[in-house]
Amino acid sequence: MDESGLVRTDLGLFLELNAVDASLPSYRRLFLALRRSILSRRIEGGTRLPSTRALSASLGISRNTVKSAYELLQAEGYLLSRRGAGCYVAELPEAKSLAADPVVINQPVKLPTASAINRAPGLLQPAVPALDHFPYRRWQRALQSGVTSVGLLAGDPQGDPRLRREIVRWLGAQRGMQVDPDQVLITSGSQQGIFLVADQLVKAGDRVLLERPGFQGTERVFDAAGARVGHFYQHELETVDRLGPARLLLLTPSRNFPLGHTLAADRRLALLNWARQNRAWLIEDDYDSEFSAGPALSAMFSLDASQQVIYAGTFSRTMFPGLRLGYLVLPVSLVTQFREARRIVDGGLSVTPQMALAEFMACGDYSRHLKRMKRLYLQRRQMLEEMLGQSSLAHLPVIGAGGGMHLCLQVPTGCDDRQLVAELDRVGVCARAISQYDPKQGAGLVLGFAAQDRDAMARGVAILERIVSAALAQLD
Amino acid sequence: MDESGLVRTDLGLFLELNAVDASLPSYRRLFLALRRSILSRRIEGGTRLPSTRALSASLGISRNTVKSAYELLQAEGYLLSRRGAGCYVAELPEAKSLAADPVVINQPVKLPTASAINRAPGLLQPAVPALDHFPYRRWQRALQSGVTSVGLLAGDPQGDPRLRREIVRWLGAQRGMQVDPDQVLITSGSQQGIFLVADQLVKAGDRVLLERPGFQGTERVFDAAGARVGHFYQHELETVDRLGPARLLLLTPSRNFPLGHTLAADRRLALLNWARQNRAWLIEDDYDSEFSAGPALSAMFSLDASQQVIYAGTFSRTMFPGLRLGYLVLPVSLVTQFREARRIVDGGLSVTPQMALAEFMACGDYSRHLKRMKRLYLQRRQMLEEMLGQSSLAHLPVIGAGGGMHLCLQVPTGCDDRQLVAELDRVGVCARAISQYDPKQGAGLVLGFAAQDRDAMARGVAILERIVSAALAQLD
Repeated sequence: MDESGLVRTDLGLFLELNAVDASLPSYRRLFLALRRSILSRRIEGGTRLPSTRALSASLGISRNTVKSAYELLQAEGYLLSRRGAGCYVAELPEAKSLAADPVVINQPVKLPTASAINRAPGLLQPAVPALDHFPYRRWQRALQSGVTSVGLLAGDPQGDPRLRREIVRWLGAQRGMQVDPDQVLITSGSQQGIFLVADQLVKAGDRVLLERPGFQGTERVFDAAGARVGHFYQHELETVDRLGPARLLLLTPSRNFPLGHTLAADRRLALLNWARQNRAWLIEDDYDSEFSAGPALSAMFSLDASQQVIYAGTFSRTMFPGLRLGYLVLPVSLVTQFREARRIVDGGLSVTPQMALAEFMACGDYSRHLKRMKRLYLQRRQMLEEMLGQSSLAHLPVIGAGGGMHLCLQVPTGCDDRQLVAELDRVGVCARAISQYDPKQGAGLVLGFAAQDRDAMARGVAILERIVSAALAQLD
Repeated sequence: MDESGLVRTDLGLFLELNAVDASLPSYRRLFLALRRSILSRRIEGGTRLPSTRALSASLGISRNTVKSAYELLQAEGYLLSRRGAGCYVAELPEAKSLAADPVVINQPVKLPTASAINRAPGLLQPAVPALDHFPYRRWQRALQSGVTSVGLLAGDPQGDPRLRREIVRWLGAQRGMQVDPDQVLITSGSQQGIFLVADQLVKAGDRVLLERPGFQGTERVFDAAGARVGHFYQHELETVDRLGPARLLLLTPSRNFPLGHTLAADRRLALLNWARQNRAWLIEDDYDSEFSAGPALSAMFSLDASQQVIYAGTFSRTMFPGLRLGYLVLPVSLVTQFREARRIVDGGLSVTPQMALAEFMACGDYSRHLKRMKRLYLQRRQMLEEMLGQSSLAHLPVIGAGGGMHLCLQVPTGCDDRQLVAELDRVGVCARAISQYDPKQGAGLVLGFAAQDRDAMARGVAILERIVSAALAQLD
């Protein structure tokens, strides 16, 4: 290569070099710059590159850097080395799929930003447990117990066996369910459980009935599966024949969300009969029964001998939302199919949280924690009801059942509860609108009290008072 | 109820009681027994039950137990209480879906047993990292760092932001990829990543090309999606036009499994051109490039400006299999779609392992760990090659590339390598058969060395010698 060619190459290289992310190691920057030059054919196939000494001198960088860059280019097939005769650019296919502008490849592009997720919980936010009362040290101890050589190995794709045994024990004592641990499938929250159910059991065009009010996340799953989604209310189950046939019905019999009512025994039996007659699956979504005001109720699963009930549970509210552990309890006939589905969709979940939870349950920390939380949540609910009762919102009825981790405050028709929620959110109160769980329900606010100590609750109620009163005044 | 009726009821109850799982609390056992009697109509609707005192006396159990059982039955709607007039069985729909034999409901049934997963790793087992050299204490420290109130909250469904930033930093330095953290989606191992790709981008009947040899897990995913699966070899990419059109092509350009060869630059460019012409997606499955013998190679993703390459990575081999963390790096055009898909399939993964890994990477523990493992694995490979070379199997060629966590030992045609693997497995050596990754490949054994110290390796080789020599002798 003649000297003027060398200067031309170097100038081009110099420019390329400056276009590369300066935070990368030097040899990689040079590698990327050279590669671009080669791919864009500014340096053609067959060209002999300058010696490492020459390039190092003209670019003012260390010779080792040049050597490393050349070695990488050789390893990747861009350069060929001929002993004693230097490095030559390889003859390569024309890279048609490279950017027309050879200066920068893969420039980071502006993306639609996802909503800010990880900020601290808002005032009166539902579904957040009492973080100030979480047994951090006991949980840390449980986490440690899994960090052993065995704990590093690939787990059972169906879920940690010890955790499944603990869940079976729990469901036996609490829900009257008698199942084999192999009927339990650990899922990433109940969300994944419901996804697997839709994925495995529902074909496009199948009719699916979902309880109202209910979670939107559930609706999205069945929409995505192409189902024809219909809705029903618990009280409609008095005349269960009016449901009509369906492939699957999902309900929250222990505790409706967000109103908290429970499905009575006679309606449970009627529904089981309907499911049997229509060969329909029943999905029992038991997201929040641990904090019911009364005694623990039996699961519908425990009543069903036709093996048509699938029970979905979650630890998101009894432990914490970030844990993302839930489970399905499957009829025996579905076990093999769902095991295979699990191998395909993700091959199993992280072992550490599962082992930690199993340990936490086995040593009694889980039930102790729940007992404490149940008492605490009853106190905090009472506190919120008192504060509301002493505020200017005292005339707004609290609707729905007691217990739980949130309460529902009804607002007069004409009030736009989603608008209210948006305004409240701007000032740090993260309530939810009842109408988003059921458009026909009428307006109202879902207010969480579980994570609120007295101060936080007072601040939340003060803001609520201000904003809701103003909205109500506009109605008059 | 007359006294003879009481005796009859009690006798039946007594029998029911004894059929219930004796490990449950007494009140629950009585509750279940009574419920069965009611549901099977042995005790009819409208019947007045004995007083708590009377039943307690005749069954010989405490009055509190009977009270609790009655209360639960009331809560569930099986009993009605009339003040001053005792407890009456509710009128209920006939429970047609109950088992004909009312004695036991939901008796745990024998299930097909899943294969034993959690036993200790076998000798010479591939894909297991060096457990004896894992930095347990550093990992525990990283785990602790996430156990804070913020760490308990629901995470970003796309994956922990800090972990995504660390991955972007790593890929920039190691793979020449310059991407935005929002292009990264954290997955449950690369298995979930590939599932999401199939789920989102492949319709039933689409043609999909998979590299051979290759993972069977990958094949299953695309079969399940209803794709028409074809195969190709890296060397066939010399004449890329022969591939024909396809929706998607999956390859392991950095390191083929199990043979370890790398796709040269000219073929990478040819493939990118093919993808552009055919509007096909390229899935770059980068499962094991960290332990290549040479320098770290650039990803195909970094060459592609048509945004048709999806990069799938995993921490299963660099960290440990039970972690189940991997990631997809998506073209910008797919980010929104995959974000939505993730919300539906599981709503996000457990936060704790993600935060721990982010911390582990950020403080430098990850790159230190990898450097040590790279050196260790080179030593262990050398050790295994030496042991084999000094054994009676010295004439069997070691095929495929160097480096990695396993090597491939060729056996003569006529040898059934799956049969060999089954025999070896019975005596604790967990090799894999090469033919199961590619039926046309010819017989051979995949032998892992990463997790084997000298003793374990010697034992493994001794067993291998014995069994393989015997099999070879039968060929003659």
